[in-house]
Amino acid sequence: MPAALVPRDPDYEARVRASFACQGIMATIGARLLRVSPGAVEIELPFRGDLTQQHGFVHAGIVTTIADSACGYSAFSLMPASASVLTVEYKVNLLAPARGERFVARGRVTKPGRTLTVCAADVVAISGGAEKAVAMMLATLMAIHDRPGLAPGL
Amino acid sequence: MPAALVPRDPDYEARVRASFACQGIMATIGARLLRVSPGAVEIELPFRGDLTQQHGFVHAGIVTTIADSACGYSAFSLMPASASVLTVEYKVNLLAPARGERFVARGRVTKPGRTLTVCAADVVAISGGAEKAVAMMLATLMAIHDRPGLAPGL
Amino acid sequence: MPAALVPRDPDYEARVRASFACQGIMATIGARLLRVSPGAVEIELPFRGDLTQQHGFVHAGIVTTIADSACGYSAFSLMPASASVLTVEYKVNLLAPARGERFVARGRVTKPGRTLTVCAADVVAISGGAEKAVAMMLATLMAIHDRPGLAPGL
Amino acid sequence: MPAALVPRDPDYEARVRASFACQGIMATIGARLLRVSPGAVEIELPFRGDLTQQHGFVHAGIVTTIADSACGYSAFSLMPASASVLTVEYKVNLLAPARGERFVARGRVTKPGRTLTVCAADVVAISGGAEKAVAMMLATLMAIHDRPGLAPGL
Repeated sequence: MPAALVPRDPDYEARVRASFACQGIMATIGARLLRVSPGAVEIELPFRGDLTQQHGFVHAGIVTTIADSACGYSAFSLMPASASVLTVEYKVNLLAPARGERFVARGRVTKPGRTLTVCAADVVAISGGAEKAVAMMLATLMAIHDRPGLAPGL
Repeated sequence: MPAALVPRDPDYEARVRASFACQGIMATIGARLLRVSPGAVEIELPFRGDLTQQHGFVHAGIVTTIADSACGYSAFSLMPASASVLTVEYKVNLLAPARGERFVARGRVTKPGRTLTVCAADVVAISGGAEKAVAMMLATLMAIHDRPGLAPGL
Repeated sequence: MPAALVPRDPDYEARVRASFACQGIMATIGARLLRVSPGAVEIELPFRGDLTQQHGFVHAGIVTTIADSACGYSAFSLMPASASVLTVEYKVNLLAPARGERFVARGRVTKPGRTLTVCAADVVAISGGAEKAVAMMLATLMAIHDRPGLAPGL
Repeated sequence: MPAALVPRDPDYEARVRASFACQGIMATIGARLLRVSPGAVEIELPFRGDLTQQHGFVHAGIVTTIADSACGYSAFSLMPASASVLTVEYKVNLLAPARGERFVARGRVTKPGRTLTVCAADVVAISGGAEKAVAMMLATLMAIHDRPGLAPGL
């Protein structure tokens, strides 16, 4: 692991999992936190018919939802215990229709920083054990220091 | 209205509303289609506690979901009756935390085209009658011609 | 003008013009600073055959160069006199090939902030007095406070 | 090499190099085409003081210029001999100020397609043999078929 991806908080995994549990939307759509490592997080979403757009694929916004949380928690895993994380912006390319049994968003930090962290995520569809890329995200996250009121869930 | 924003299908509004009704995710999150005009569409989302991220704001991915559909249907409103629409990519800047009583995504076509259409959307939070900008989207949409199988919902 | 777009430095225009004069690339490509107002800046670029891509249009990267400086100086015009500005990221949609007698990038602040400012820019091609949109940018700029060494040109 | 990255034109490298030679901007800024392989292209730019922004770093728009051409030619390398390539849009994150002896943009196809191709590029600064990441691009390119008039340089 590059030196830059050493977490400042040794309890980073518990902190990420506790925050994820406070994201009401994750329970609503049925998303689950898989692997959490320093600067890299995976989130899984099983297909459901009530998450779809008009052609029966998972809506791009829901693909974005798990990609954004995967990026956000990748950044958050490297931050000090007192920091909160907010998304500044992201860009998503939709590579293929989001059809499959389940989807996995794999986020990773590409450039850590005290204030701004740049992350990328790939989202794949998995069907019968085979993976297909459905989306790529490139995102900017911001650490908010010393504003505990921002973070009721943390 | 500029000539370029004349819809090719006079029944564009009915076509947009029928397609929106096929987006399962819109019912799941409680979003509603408001105004539909040539090249411009508005979608409303009341706040709900089960749509939130860890600080209690609506998750950026859900803000993106209504912005994407507002852009997609803005583009779709100008397409011929036989076309389907898919999102190629988008970029979203989150301007402020998404807190408020309800949210409105206002999409508009900024550059129509036979294959690719560029759209923009603003998302505002509304509380006590006052509006606050929470997000901006810049998106590329693609018309799919002559592939009716793509579009069960249309 | 909205309260938020009141410049903190009354000499904002002189400061923007002095910084622009330090951007060596602007002289190299022949770009010129036009209007500077609080939160809005225009830059003009006459067509030149040595700025082109393989079809004879101005290269997208050069269109981006004037759009980025228009956004950057729009943000900079609102910052305190001691701040420097850096571009965090941008997204550009190319709407039409960049052919014309000259090009104007019009930047504007859409969301000012102490650390981060969001800006948008339109780039138009002008030929025979008629304008045509060629690109749209959505950008994030960062104010750097109290690091004068960063800014030899200011 | 994945099957999808097999070039349709066996003379892809000559075609890419001939088109690059028609990009007037590359000579103007002093950029040079390095490696060309199927779906991957590298472009080098030595530092020059007349390519800079106000702090003496290479302007983000010039970093973008070589990244865009690296992405464009990565996509172009896989296209049939009769196609032209245009940039639809891109997003760039600036990771660090562009200072160094020279810069290399490494483009690669992440999702090929008949009409649209998605590419990514990394730009690194090289000084004294050490590399540092300065930018990441995520881009959408479009193949234009059967319009030879578009492409005087090909």
